Amino acid sequence: MPQYEECEQMIEGPYLLFVGGVSHALYAKTANGIRYWRPEMCKGQLRFPGCAADLDLPDMSIIQAVQEGVKTIVIGVAPAGGALPDAWIATLVEALSQGLDIASGLHTRLNEISELREAAKEYGRRIFDVRYPAQSFAVGSGEKRVGKRLLTVGTDCAVGKMYTALALEKEMRARGFDADFQATGQTGILIAGGGVSVDAVVSDFISGAAEWLSPVNEADHWDVIEGQGSLFHPSYAGVSLGLLHGAQPDALVVCHEAGRQNIAGVAGYKPPDIQTCIDLNVSLGRLTNPDIKCVGVGVNTASLGDEEAMRYLAGLENTIGLACVDPVRTGVGRIVDHLEEASDPCS
Amino acid sequence: MPQYEECEQMIEGPYLLFVGGVSHALYAKTANGIRYWRPEMCKGQLRFPGCAADLDLPDMSIIQAVQEGVKTIVIGVAPAGGALPDAWIATLVEALSQGLDIASGLHTRLNEISELREAAKEYGRRIFDVRYPAQSFAVGSGEKRVGKRLLTVGTDCAVGKMYTALALEKEMRARGFDADFQATGQTGILIAGGGVSVDAVVSDFISGAAEWLSPVNEADHWDVIEGQGSLFHPSYAGVSLGLLHGAQPDALVVCHEAGRQNIAGVAGYKPPDIQTCIDLNVSLGRLTNPDIKCVGVGVNTASLGDEEAMRYLAGLENTIGLACVDPVRTGVGRIVDHLEEASDPCS
Repeated sequence: MPQYEECEQMIEGPYLLFVGGVSHALYAKTANGIRYWRPEMCKGQLRFPGCAADLDLPDMSIIQAVQEGVKTIVIGVAPAGGALPDAWIATLVEALSQGLDIASGLHTRLNEISELREAAKEYGRRIFDVRYPAQSFAVGSGEKRVGKRLLTVGTDCAVGKMYTALALEKEMRARGFDADFQATGQTGILIAGGGVSVDAVVSDFISGAAEWLSPVNEADHWDVIEGQGSLFHPSYAGVSLGLLHGAQPDALVVCHEAGRQNIAGVAGYKPPDIQTCIDLNVSLGRLTNPDIKCVGVGVNTASLGDEEAMRYLAGLENTIGLACVDPVRTGVGRIVDHLEEASDPCS
Repeated sequence: MPQYEECEQMIEGPYLLFVGGVSHALYAKTANGIRYWRPEMCKGQLRFPGCAADLDLPDMSIIQAVQEGVKTIVIGVAPAGGALPDAWIATLVEALSQGLDIASGLHTRLNEISELREAAKEYGRRIFDVRYPAQSFAVGSGEKRVGKRLLTVGTDCAVGKMYTALALEKEMRARGFDADFQATGQTGILIAGGGVSVDAVVSDFISGAAEWLSPVNEADHWDVIEGQGSLFHPSYAGVSLGLLHGAQPDALVVCHEAGRQNIAGVAGYKPPDIQTCIDLNVSLGRLTNPDIKCVGVGVNTASLGDEEAMRYLAGLENTIGLACVDPVRTGVGRIVDHLEEASDPCS
């Protein structure tokens, strides 16, 4: 169950996924993520003629979606070029007029588009611009909170921290853990229905936002927190450190992409080796949780063949001494085995 | 000379320092800081009857200040309780109507007080709410920039990072260095006439803001950058790390308060020892500047007697092997000696 103190900020399901008229199926990445991780939340898709994406959901008009009980239309694609096409706006105004909320992870704030803002007001609906925090946060207190927390961290940006966290939540729930994914980026928030886009929080409040996101809970409850950035990324390490301190993780899972040669988006920076990444995160994380441990490594091995990938993971595991998995290829079960053993009082 | 690309964001001097009617001289800390570090910028003070502070400047009305060539009235005190008293607002509206700009480091945004905003518009004047960045920044690039940079860092918040940076700028200029203090907090910005309140920058852009603040420059030019927070503070370490990465310092000066038992504002955290603070800052700073070095330590020894302070500094210096000074008691000359030796090609 979500633990948010301000539940009016949760996006209400079920969803109609809006994919517009994208020219390539890959552009529907956000919609696919929601469909994959929260199938029970997705009632249908709204596609324009010629749309190249298919989420394997019933095609629905706004009216049909309302009849099916949909509460929110979720923008699952980014418009080419950035500006919202008129056809999108007309569809979204119709959605508001028919009683749906809108959720969007776009850079463009839908709340700043006058037609949408006015329609939302007129029809009493909500527009969630999930990239921009709607609330303010307290400064981090550093006080230790009851409950367990796992944070995914990375050797770089875009190495699978969100995917790994969601895979861990799924596997942990399947084994009876009381576990909740906590989202820190726009796609994660649309999947979870809530969360905080931590990189959009004012710097003073990063660790406070992470504390808010994973508040005090039952002693055996796990928050599985989506990491952001990397301590090794010259643009974003501050975000990663604030999140690490505020999350107070008991358990870290380090994420990596096999074969990545350069830190994303900057010139002249190499990803660290995985042991270095583990050591620095553990060392800095001790400030707010002296018991922090790395419990496993999740590697995106998509660039490798099957055999090569298995050899890579086995070699890594031999070096690091922790379960090393590919969340897509092998699943994260062996990391969860470790959490089970650690939580078993007889072991 | 300030290096800002957008010079219209510089606060124009000279200043009239507004201290209102504070009940204790200590409340005029900001005004005193400006008076102390930028005496040439301060033409006068505006005090209400009964004001307990005296900046040792001519008392002036708004009209007199305008006649003396003042360009900006600077709020040098915080109002008791937070809200601006009516008498302040009347005075500030008068200042705008007489052609002065206003600069303020208060939490309350003067631009959000309708009387002030409207008067500024009517009279074509500017209101600088320096706690809130007026511009947006790019994401940090991590690209190495020509020019030298020194950053003050701390074992905790409020240990003298701004004072030390200003003392270094003064001493360096006196010895012929081309050096500019670069402010990262509201008091520093009012002193320098510009800068960025980095803790108010959106997390994604912390290191980018630090890059903007200390851009490419002549090879022998020094930006002396005011540090914020501490890597050891559970609320603010993310800000400190983003600033460290964006500043790309060649030289670090670690600041500390002798005798401090607890990290400021949080429960259960102890300041690190100074060597630990040096090591972590150097180790993390290497990401964006592999040549980073700690060049000295600045300690606030106000809690110690003279003899005890000198013993403390000598003992520290013996342990650390770097110049350890109290910027107030001993000055920072010995740290600048080290910079001179390091920059002398014959040494």
